[in-house]
Amino acid sequence: MEISTKRHSLSHIMAQAVKSIYPEVKMAIWPDTDTGFYYDFDFGEIEIKEENLKEIEKKMKNIIKQNQIFEYVPKSVDEGIKFLKNMWEIYKVEMAEDLKAKWETSLGFYKNISQKWEEMFIDMCAGPHIEKMSQLDENAFKLEKIAWAYWRWDSSKKMLTRIYGLAFDTREELENHVKMMEEAKKRDHRILGKKLKLFTISDLVWAWLPLFQPAWMIIRKELENYLWELHKNHGYDRVCTPHLAKEDLYVTSWHAGHYLEDMFSVYGWTSKEKFHLKPMNCPHHMQIFADNQFSYRDMPVRYFEPATVYRDEKTGQLSGLTRVRSITQDDWHLFCRIWQIKDEVRLITDIIKKFYATMWMLDNYWVSLSVRDEEDKSKYLGSDEVWQKAEWALEEAAIANELPYKRIPWEAAFYGPKLDFMFKDCLGREWQLATIQCDFNLPERFNLSFTNEEWNPERPVVIHRAISGSLERFMWIIIEHFAGLFPTWLSPRQVIIVPVADKFDDYAKELNQKLKALDIRASVDYSTDSLNKKVRNAETSKYNYVLIVWEQEIADNTVSVRNVKTKEQTTEKVEDFINKLSDEIKNRVL
Amino acid sequence: MEISTKRHSLSHIMAQAVKSIYPEVKMAIWPDTDTGFYYDFDFGEIEIKEENLKEIEKKMKNIIKQNQIFEYVPKSVDEGIKFLKNMWEIYKVEMAEDLKAKWETSLGFYKNISQKWEEMFIDMCAGPHIEKMSQLDENAFKLEKIAWAYWRWDSSKKMLTRIYGLAFDTREELENHVKMMEEAKKRDHRILGKKLKLFTISDLVWAWLPLFQPAWMIIRKELENYLWELHKNHGYDRVCTPHLAKEDLYVTSWHAGHYLEDMFSVYGWTSKEKFHLKPMNCPHHMQIFADNQFSYRDMPVRYFEPATVYRDEKTGQLSGLTRVRSITQDDWHLFCRIWQIKDEVRLITDIIKKFYATMWMLDNYWVSLSVRDEEDKSKYLGSDEVWQKAEWALEEAAIANELPYKRIPWEAAFYGPKLDFMFKDCLGREWQLATIQCDFNLPERFNLSFTNEEWNPERPVVIHRAISGSLERFMWIIIEHFAGLFPTWLSPRQVIIVPVADKFDDYAKELNQKLKALDIRASVDYSTDSLNKKVRNAETSKYNYVLIVWEQEIADNTVSVRNVKTKEQTTEKVEDFINKLSDEIKNRVL
Repeated sequence: MEISTKRHSLSHIMAQAVKSIYPEVKMAIWPDTDTGFYYDFDFGEIEIKEENLKEIEKKMKNIIKQNQIFEYVPKSVDEGIKFLKNMWEIYKVEMAEDLKAKWETSLGFYKNISQKWEEMFIDMCAGPHIEKMSQLDENAFKLEKIAWAYWRWDSSKKMLTRIYGLAFDTREELENHVKMMEEAKKRDHRILGKKLKLFTISDLVWAWLPLFQPAWMIIRKELENYLWELHKNHGYDRVCTPHLAKEDLYVTSWHAGHYLEDMFSVYGWTSKEKFHLKPMNCPHHMQIFADNQFSYRDMPVRYFEPATVYRDEKTGQLSGLTRVRSITQDDWHLFCRIWQIKDEVRLITDIIKKFYATMWMLDNYWVSLSVRDEEDKSKYLGSDEVWQKAEWALEEAAIANELPYKRIPWEAAFYGPKLDFMFKDCLGREWQLATIQCDFNLPERFNLSFTNEEWNPERPVVIHRAISGSLERFMWIIIEHFAGLFPTWLSPRQVIIVPVADKFDDYAKELNQKLKALDIRASVDYSTDSLNKKVRNAETSKYNYVLIVWEQEIADNTVSVRNVKTKEQTTEKVEDFINKLSDEIKNRVL
Repeated sequence: MEISTKRHSLSHIMAQAVKSIYPEVKMAIWPDTDTGFYYDFDFGEIEIKEENLKEIEKKMKNIIKQNQIFEYVPKSVDEGIKFLKNMWEIYKVEMAEDLKAKWETSLGFYKNISQKWEEMFIDMCAGPHIEKMSQLDENAFKLEKIAWAYWRWDSSKKMLTRIYGLAFDTREELENHVKMMEEAKKRDHRILGKKLKLFTISDLVWAWLPLFQPAWMIIRKELENYLWELHKNHGYDRVCTPHLAKEDLYVTSWHAGHYLEDMFSVYGWTSKEKFHLKPMNCPHHMQIFADNQFSYRDMPVRYFEPATVYRDEKTGQLSGLTRVRSITQDDWHLFCRIWQIKDEVRLITDIIKKFYATMWMLDNYWVSLSVRDEEDKSKYLGSDEVWQKAEWALEEAAIANELPYKRIPWEAAFYGPKLDFMFKDCLGREWQLATIQCDFNLPERFNLSFTNEEWNPERPVVIHRAISGSLERFMWIIIEHFAGLFPTWLSPRQVIIVPVADKFDDYAKELNQKLKALDIRASVDYSTDSLNKKVRNAETSKYNYVLIVWEQEIADNTVSVRNVKTKEQTTEKVEDFINKLSDEIKNRVL
């Protein structure tokens, strides 16, 4: 039994419960979701509140206990429409009439058979459903929340009441999910981002274009330095390209034909050319390559540009960093020969594994080898031969690198197959983060070549690859993953020194300078708050270490160290603490 | 005698010579320039070539030898116009009629009195001129080149022939200038930029938006790291802001009213707001500040963002990096209290001096204290009191820091006074590079404040400051300043190893790896070229050191080192060379 079938069936049962309590309610749409289901209702004049959900939930459990049966009742289109009109189900009538207009001849209905007449329920639906309600665990679902949505997403139409439910196979799964959601709420990057002063949303700038505060930039620079350290001895070079280009570039790259609606257009007052903000770096990098006369000795050529690109994506719910229009890519492009793909992918895979081991996300990862839909090749650019070569090279590399991969058809990009890396955060949420994508198309379109051993021009392959993916997205994942308490090497607030009274301020200051001279991000809490308050403040500000300083410490040249993550409290020689901390940072300990 | 008077008089003499050779020529405009003079002529059907300049120059010298006198001949407007019409000087007639339209009642004419009737010359002119030609040194001028220009800069009007001349007080000055120009030509950043593969101009991207190759990025990263090193222990923080903002931001900042024509506009397909590409970072940084609740303890607050901004400047001649529309600013903004300005300016001045000493440009610098035009205060924003405070604070800081400054009225920005630092490159060309600008206006417009000791909101002062100025401009200055042979610490090509025969390749490779492990930018020339050819290639590719490796070197564990800058050739123990080189890089030796 598919969980989606159970979830969808529960939306019927919810409607059944709602109609038995509020017979005048009109029903609209009722899909299942990734975590449960919802139903949009027109409650008319009745105002439904969170407390009413309890009653509806109780009624649903009661219905389930009766072990009602879902009985399929087909009707002809006209008979069905007449039936719905009789019940005054105006939204269902509209849907049924749409189906009729699409030449449907019959409509499916499902009836829930109850002993009580007021609970008899019938709903137009194509199914599938469970057969009988005993297939559900009445403790494995829960009504979640109320929201509002326009009928048919049209703001000129009526606003309907949407009731969300959570549903799983077992009670345990439901409880885990609820716990995870509560934990996620505490870790919400929007709240932590504000509290820890990581980023700023300015109405004057635009709600979708975050500005990054100093604390964010410390994390970003550490990540960028680490990524660069992993790459720099493997022949990667930095390049830099402007944030806009003439439309000509995107005509050549094919984006103007297929990506235009996602690009911002740029116009000058004096300059009359038509420009676009770059939605990705690859076309620019093709031009960087093209201006060199490379020989086979120079291959592979590898470029890195951690640039911000801009995409005018369709409006979604405003939600911190999740749908921003400024996207900082860790954008690396390789140009290599076909037979070099395997070695390059191996090297990248090593780097990906190292990076995510450091980030504590390497458990339970898997890799999607995203290949072409063989049934409908028209969606893809490039010849059969080119696709077979690329898919084979990636799969061979995946096997050679012992990647836990699955071959997923239809998931390829239009320009080539790819390896997408799926990682789980500490809440068990899965994220597609790293990617390695073959591209036989761009080198063709930009007519790129290098000189081979026979002095002939040879076409390179392009590999697009990202390790962290969009930095904005990666940041919100790790803010929530670490609940704001970043590993010390990444942390913008590594150490805070708390003098117990102001007569220890000088010693605290001296200690602070000693730490700062070693590039440790330290500060002193000179406020007049109590010791307890200062420690509490340090913890909510997500400092890694709190150093408490008073008489005894100064006499012994020691510090009382509170490790915020482990809650351990120790007394250590100053030099020992500094050495341990420096090692922790240098080795990027979690 | 002002040199500009001599230069202007020479333009008359040039016209006199031209008319004596080509009597049909019509004369247009005739100004002096920073290095000489030019005159725009309508040669009609006659095609004038570089070789004709010799003849004109000879005639000019001949005229000067006659020691002719410049005689002033005033005429009434109508009489003057009639006179010019009689001579068919159609361009002069047009100019005279414009003067008449502006209610001028008389016109000045200058006559050069010659013994030869065909050299008698009269030109409408307001002067001033030299009195007699013996005031000129006939060896201190030279006709330079021919160019073309539209009459009145209007492309629908006739294209005129422009003849440029160089002119100085003495022959020596002229010769020095010509020598400098020849040297500058050899150092031209456009030629070196292409040869050393520093940047790329792509027609598909746009001629005014350079793309930066790996070699450029090495220099840029070294510069940025050095700048950061000079600042990081002085309380500066990195921030990062998007490359566009809603027009609202620029309405608040006042740019929308006064800078609109220099901004690129941005439109989304889905998003309906009006945006602009940022032409500077300051308005964004105001928003970063505003989202914090700072107290007097936090002041000064100091932000750094090495961001690329975009300006649609008026079209000029296409010329490498000199007029690009993408401008990477070393943009630092301080927020401080009025009484903190002096100390902050002292700190910045220290950094500027250190930086330009390292760049070998600290000789003969001077500083312009650019203040307000007291005669016309309407051009400036802000009250008298605010201006006096700011000018006084900068001047006090300049005195305290013993800066070689001059007070220059009218040169202030509309938002406040500034200190502009003028440096000379090794060709003696002067550049305005570093700047420190007070701004009492933006904090006002963005209503910024921090909490002072009395728990009241207090308005901060903003200081805009740049050390290198636009990176694109700074790069072309230093490319030409160093003629492409950058100091080793900046150089993208520090060492090349030249094995004399391929049997030494393994040793060369090993040595190369040793250097690379120390982050020294080294490579090996494995080509089959001759030793001489390899050394020549290394020199034209602007490597700093060429290491020649053969039998003896391997036996002794030494290298033959050729220092490309000094041309010195030495034999050194490998370890000694590596230590010296590492020190040279670490200490940023010139």
